[in-house]
Amino acid sequence: MKVAVLCSGRGSNLSALLEAKARGELPCADFRAVLSDQEGAGALDAARVRGIDALTVRSSDFKGDRPGFEKRILEALAPYSIELAVLAGFQRVLGRAFLDAFPAGVMNIHPALLPSFPGHMVWSKETDYGVKLAGATAHFVDEGVDSGPIICQGAVPVLETDGPDELSARILKVEHRIFPAAVGWVTSGRVSMKGRTSLLKGFEPKPGQAEAFLAWPALDA
Amino acid sequence: MKVAVLCSGRGSNLSALLEAKARGELPCADFRAVLSDQEGAGALDAARVRGIDALTVRSSDFKGDRPGFEKRILEALAPYSIELAVLAGFQRVLGRAFLDAFPAGVMNIHPALLPSFPGHMVWSKETDYGVKLAGATAHFVDEGVDSGPIICQGAVPVLETDGPDELSARILKVEHRIFPAAVGWVTSGRVSMKGRTSLLKGFEPKPGQAEAFLAWPALDA
Repeated sequence: MKVAVLCSGRGSNLSALLEAKARGELPCADFRAVLSDQEGAGALDAARVRGIDALTVRSSDFKGDRPGFEKRILEALAPYSIELAVLAGFQRVLGRAFLDAFPAGVMNIHPALLPSFPGHMVWSKETDYGVKLAGATAHFVDEGVDSGPIICQGAVPVLETDGPDELSARILKVEHRIFPAAVGWVTSGRVSMKGRTSLLKGFEPKPGQAEAFLAWPALDA
Repeated sequence: MKVAVLCSGRGSNLSALLEAKARGELPCADFRAVLSDQEGAGALDAARVRGIDALTVRSSDFKGDRPGFEKRILEALAPYSIELAVLAGFQRVLGRAFLDAFPAGVMNIHPALLPSFPGHMVWSKETDYGVKLAGATAHFVDEGVDSGPIICQGAVPVLETDGPDELSARILKVEHRIFPAAVGWVTSGRVSMKGRTSLLKGFEPKPGQAEAFLAWPALDA
């Protein structure tokens, strides 16, 4: 499946995907292009190092013109016949025409256990709220803010000593684990939808897995 | 610490608390009274079996008169000098005067990973949304709907075969594990607040505990 990754920043989730690919874990993902809406984004270098085309469509050239911005991205990606768009730190709400341009859809990784804490500034919202479990969600993108169907979620404890930065780092590790898995499932055609619920073809929980449990504070505290 | 448990239904969380007490796990919790707002609630029998006073204040006698209902409950509990009120399936929003009547506060158990899915009918909301992780939250009660400071959270997978009933049963097991722990921490004076964040005195995560991680679907799916 031909994949484009859209980024804005240093692209650590892009790197996690490309490293998983290099380890042979994403045999069906054909990363054809990486596109950034910021000039000089670290993600572009990460792409070039792997021999993947690195494109830039500056969002600053399209202030207040979201349709024009999205159209320009689709034009830039047109030569690659992209089937799946993967957002890795590309924090923009996208329109229907853009979403419909990719036959396998658009995926995103969000640093929270959705539907808790959609949108921006998640980590300070989480530490301000005082949640004991946080995590990340890999999901399909719809026209809302982090509101599309969920593919995979991962949870971790929030420590008493965690500020937004520490929590961000802990959640980023979760993102780097679950996003490559989710991209692997989607690119290998294993994910289908039943209403808003994603189904993973061939997934039979191993003995004990369905009884998995994570509590925080630890119950023997 | 003198504790009253407020229930509406069969009181499975009450039973979990009383069983933990019987096992010696809640040495500082002195369960003095169980109060139901429904006549003949199973929770009342569970209390009587353990020799705990069982009280009823029928909510149906106070339709549209929340202050009167709460006042009547406080009057019923007055002889017991209750320090902590524990809500176990007592689904009512409470006023400031009621909350302030208990020096150690009011606790609740909610069948979701708050702030996701507050309020009623949680399980069908969760399966409709298609979350991959669900769980329960033990928290202090404020004047909002399931919006008070969190004490403990526990997460479990949501299986593809889960309807609301299956998910409810899986989450109930989490409630029965985390609520006695949280009540134990509060009654032994170990829980303090820093803003909205609860701190657990003497909790030093054991090696590896802080790296705990739960993802669903399982990443080796």
